[in-house]
Amino acid sequence: MAKDKKMVTAITSMDEDFAQWYTDICKKAELVEYTSVKGCMVIRPYGYAIWENIQRILDGMFKATGHENVCMPMFIPESLLQKEKDHVEGFAPEVAWVTHGGNEKLEDRLCVRPTSETLFCEHYANIVHSYRDLPKLYNQWVSVVRWEKTTRPFLRSREFLWQEGHTIHATAEEAIEETERMLNVYAQFCEESLAMPVVKGKKTESDKFAGAVSTYAIEALMHDGKALQAGTSHYFGDGFAKAFDIQYTDKDNQRVYPHQTSWGVTTRLIGAVIMTHGDDNGLVLPPAVAPTQIVIIPVAQHKEGVLEKAGELRDRLAAAGYRVKLDDSENSPGWKFAEYEMKGVPLRVEIGPRDIEEDQCVIASRWNGEKTFVPLAELESAAAQKLQEAHDGMFAKALENQKKRTYACTTIDEINKALEQGDGFIKAMWCGDEACEDAVKEQTGVGSRCIPFDQEQLSDKCVCCGKPAKCMVYWGKAY
Amino acid sequence: MAKDKKMVTAITSMDEDFAQWYTDICKKAELVEYTSVKGCMVIRPYGYAIWENIQRILDGMFKATGHENVCMPMFIPESLLQKEKDHVEGFAPEVAWVTHGGNEKLEDRLCVRPTSETLFCEHYANIVHSYRDLPKLYNQWVSVVRWEKTTRPFLRSREFLWQEGHTIHATAEEAIEETERMLNVYAQFCEESLAMPVVKGKKTESDKFAGAVSTYAIEALMHDGKALQAGTSHYFGDGFAKAFDIQYTDKDNQRVYPHQTSWGVTTRLIGAVIMTHGDDNGLVLPPAVAPTQIVIIPVAQHKEGVLEKAGELRDRLAAAGYRVKLDDSENSPGWKFAEYEMKGVPLRVEIGPRDIEEDQCVIASRWNGEKTFVPLAELESAAAQKLQEAHDGMFAKALENQKKRTYACTTIDEINKALEQGDGFIKAMWCGDEACEDAVKEQTGVGSRCIPFDQEQLSDKCVCCGKPAKCMVYWGKAY
Repeated sequence: MAKDKKMVTAITSMDEDFAQWYTDICKKAELVEYTSVKGCMVIRPYGYAIWENIQRILDGMFKATGHENVCMPMFIPESLLQKEKDHVEGFAPEVAWVTHGGNEKLEDRLCVRPTSETLFCEHYANIVHSYRDLPKLYNQWVSVVRWEKTTRPFLRSREFLWQEGHTIHATAEEAIEETERMLNVYAQFCEESLAMPVVKGKKTESDKFAGAVSTYAIEALMHDGKALQAGTSHYFGDGFAKAFDIQYTDKDNQRVYPHQTSWGVTTRLIGAVIMTHGDDNGLVLPPAVAPTQIVIIPVAQHKEGVLEKAGELRDRLAAAGYRVKLDDSENSPGWKFAEYEMKGVPLRVEIGPRDIEEDQCVIASRWNGEKTFVPLAELESAAAQKLQEAHDGMFAKALENQKKRTYACTTIDEINKALEQGDGFIKAMWCGDEACEDAVKEQTGVGSRCIPFDQEQLSDKCVCCGKPAKCMVYWGKAY
Repeated sequence: MAKDKKMVTAITSMDEDFAQWYTDICKKAELVEYTSVKGCMVIRPYGYAIWENIQRILDGMFKATGHENVCMPMFIPESLLQKEKDHVEGFAPEVAWVTHGGNEKLEDRLCVRPTSETLFCEHYANIVHSYRDLPKLYNQWVSVVRWEKTTRPFLRSREFLWQEGHTIHATAEEAIEETERMLNVYAQFCEESLAMPVVKGKKTESDKFAGAVSTYAIEALMHDGKALQAGTSHYFGDGFAKAFDIQYTDKDNQRVYPHQTSWGVTTRLIGAVIMTHGDDNGLVLPPAVAPTQIVIIPVAQHKEGVLEKAGELRDRLAAAGYRVKLDDSENSPGWKFAEYEMKGVPLRVEIGPRDIEEDQCVIASRWNGEKTFVPLAELESAAAQKLQEAHDGMFAKALENQKKRTYACTTIDEINKALEQGDGFIKAMWCGDEACEDAVKEQTGVGSRCIPFDQEQLSDKCVCCGKPAKCMVYWGKAY
C-alpha cells in the first residue's frame, strides 16, 4: 500500500486492554519489529534514537562521576561462570550456550553473557595489584542474553541492550558509597530526563542479585498501577574477590581483598517511558530523550510562501539547539497530526497562510493537547518554555498517578481492600521474616518491591504476623 | 609492585621483531588485555576511548549522509542464514553455534551473527512495500563473531566491534552510488581523522564478500610494508532481495526487486593506527582520535606555584576544547615522559619554576620529538598549530612510506626483485584471469589487494601470462 494512502489507524484503548495498547504503541510508533529469532526484536530507528539519547545523557553522568568505558568479551567459559556459587546458581538456568565454533565442538562450552561480573573479576585479578591501582570505575554498553520463557518488547526479551557498571574499591565503605551514588544517578536521570518519579530503596534478601550482599533498586509505578524495576545497583562485599582470588597490597603491605559493585539499566527504560506517559493517541515522549522534539507541519503547503516560512522556522529552531523536523510530505495535515501524536513528539508547530499573515504560528503540546498562538518573533523562547512545561507537567502527572495509587495499609484486609480500587503501591510494615513476605504475596498478590530509603512508621507491627515491625516495605505487582 | 616503583619498560624494537613490537604496544599502552576466552580480548579504557572517538566521528558522517542507526538481534537462526547460497557457504564454516537455551535444546540452532545481511533482509521483507518506502539507509554499531583459528589483538579476533551499514534502494544505480559514497566516507575518515593514506579500489572476483556482486575496499600500507584492508563496501544487486523475496511496488504499479548494499569498518582500524604511526617508544596517536590530546607535566612540582600554574594551563586548554590531562602524580617527570610517549599522546606540555619565571612553557610533539618554547600567552594557538602539524606530518610520513614501498613491476622477476628490498605494494598489470592471480601469489608471495580506481597503464601485458592486460592491480602481503 502506498504511504500516502496509509491511514493512521487507532490503537487499542489503554483502559480496555493495557497490554494490547502497549504492544500497539511499540509497533505503530515504529519502535520495534518482530523477527524470526524468538524473544528477540529489531529496535527500529525511532526506538533506537530514544536509546541513543538515553545513552548519551547517562554516559555523560557516568563520566562526570569518574567512570571509564571498557568492552569485555560476549562469551563466558562455563568454568569461569561457575567460580562464584550463588552467581552461577542464579544465572546458569537461563543462559544461551555456544557449543560449537565452526565445525569444531568446544571443550569448555561458552555462555553468552547474561551479565559480566565473572569477566570483570578475571580482569581485575590481572590488573589490580596495589592499593594504588584502586579504585577501578568501569562501565560497558553492550547487549546481554537471558533465556526468558515469555517476552515483551523492551520489558523482557531474550537479548536486551544495557549498560553494566563494574567497580572495585579498597574498602567496603567506598564500595557501598559507590552503590548508593549510582542509584542516585539513576533516580536523577529518571526524574530529570524521563520525567518519571521513582522510589529508591533496598531489595529484600529474597530479591537480591545472585552473588550480592545487598541490592538497591529504583521502582517506578506505571499508568496501570503495576510496578516496574527501572534500575539496580549491587554491593558485593568481597565475595567475588574471594571466589576469583583478587587481592591487593595495602598501605601496610598486607594482602587484602577489595570490595566490588555493579549497577545497570536497560532498554526496559523505553518500556517505562511508554507506560508512564503514553495515552490513547500513542506515545508521549519526555523532551530530553525525544528523537524529534519539535515537528513543524505546514498547513495548505501548496500556497505561496508556506513551505519557505516553515523552512525558516525549522532553521531557527535547529539553530537554537532543538531536534526539529519539518514534514513537507504530501500527506494531509490531519494525517500528520495523528502520526506525530502517535510518535509522541513533544511539540507540534503549525504554520499556514493565515498564520503568516498575522506573523504567528500555533504550538501544540503533545502531553496535554494545549494549543497556543505564538508571535513568530518569540518562537525560540516559546518553544523553550513549552518544552520545560511539558517536562514538568509530565513529571507532576506521573507523580500524581503514583501518589493516588499508593496505599498505606496495616492489615492484609486493608491491602486487599485497597487493591479493589486497582493495582498500585502498597506501603506496609514488615517484620523482616521471609515467611511473611511470601504470605503477603500469596494472600494479596503483591510482592515486596523494595525497602524504601524514606521510611515511615505506619504502625509498630508487621502487616502479616503482627510481630514487631522492622521496616516499611513497598509492595506491588511487578512487570 | 607499587605504581611509583613501576618502570616504563622498553618494548621490542620494531625493526627487530615487528609482530612482537605490535603486541608489546597493545599491552603496555594498556589498550587490551587477554582473557580466558580464547581469541577474545578485553578492550581497556584507553583502547576503548580511541574506539569511542572513531565511533563519534564516523557516526556523525553516517548521519550527515542520511543514515539511521538500528539494532538487530545478535542471533541468526540456521534456516535464515541458509537462504542465500553464496552467503551461507562463505560464513557457515566460521560461526559460533548456540545449541541450548538454559537446559532446553533448540530445534533450529542459532549462530552468533558473523554479519547481519540475513537479518536486515528479513526485516526489509516486513517493512518495504512501496517505492515510497525506499531507500532505507541503516547502520548498526555492534560486535560480531567469526571463529578464527589464529588471532591478534584488533587485527583478527573471534569477536570484534564494528559498524555495519545496510541499505536498500529502488534502483541498481542508486545502490552502486551508495556503495561508492560510503567507500569515500571511509577513505576521507582514514585520511582526515587517522592521518592514514589509503588506496581505493575494487576487489577481484576471488576476493569478494560472500553474496556480493562487487566489493570495494580501502587498502592501507603498514610501517612494515604489509597491506591491511581497512574497510569494505559491497554492492549486492538484487541477489539477496530474490533470496529473501523482498519486492516493492514501483511507480508503474509493478512488483520489482530492490537493490542492496552493506559496508563496514571494525576495531581493526585501531591496529592500523598502531602499525601506521607507532615507533620504538610506543604508540603515536592522530590528534583526532587520541583520548588525551595534550598532557601537562609539571617539573619540580613540589616547588611553590608549579601545580597551580599547571592547573591553570589545563583549564585554559580544556576551555579551548582540547582533551587535556594534568598528571600531578608523584612519579618523576622522566617516568611520565616515557609513559605518555608509550601512550602516544600527541602533545606534552612541560612547565617548571624556570618556565614560570620566564612566562613560557615547553610543547613537545610526540610524532617527531620536537620541543618548542611557547610564551604562555600563546598557549592555545600554539597547541592548535602543533596538533595540526602533527596530523599533517603524520599523514605525510605515512604517505612517504607508502610511496617508497610501492613498486611498479612488469614481470614476475621484477616483483621478486622489488620484494627483496622489503614488503610493500606491487603495482602490476593483470589479464583478469584467476589463474594468473593465483600464479602471482604462488611465485611471489603477494596476493591481489584491489583494482585501484586510479588506474595507470604500466604496460599492455599481464604481468604473469603476457596476454593483453585488462587493468592494473595492487598486490601485497596481507594482514
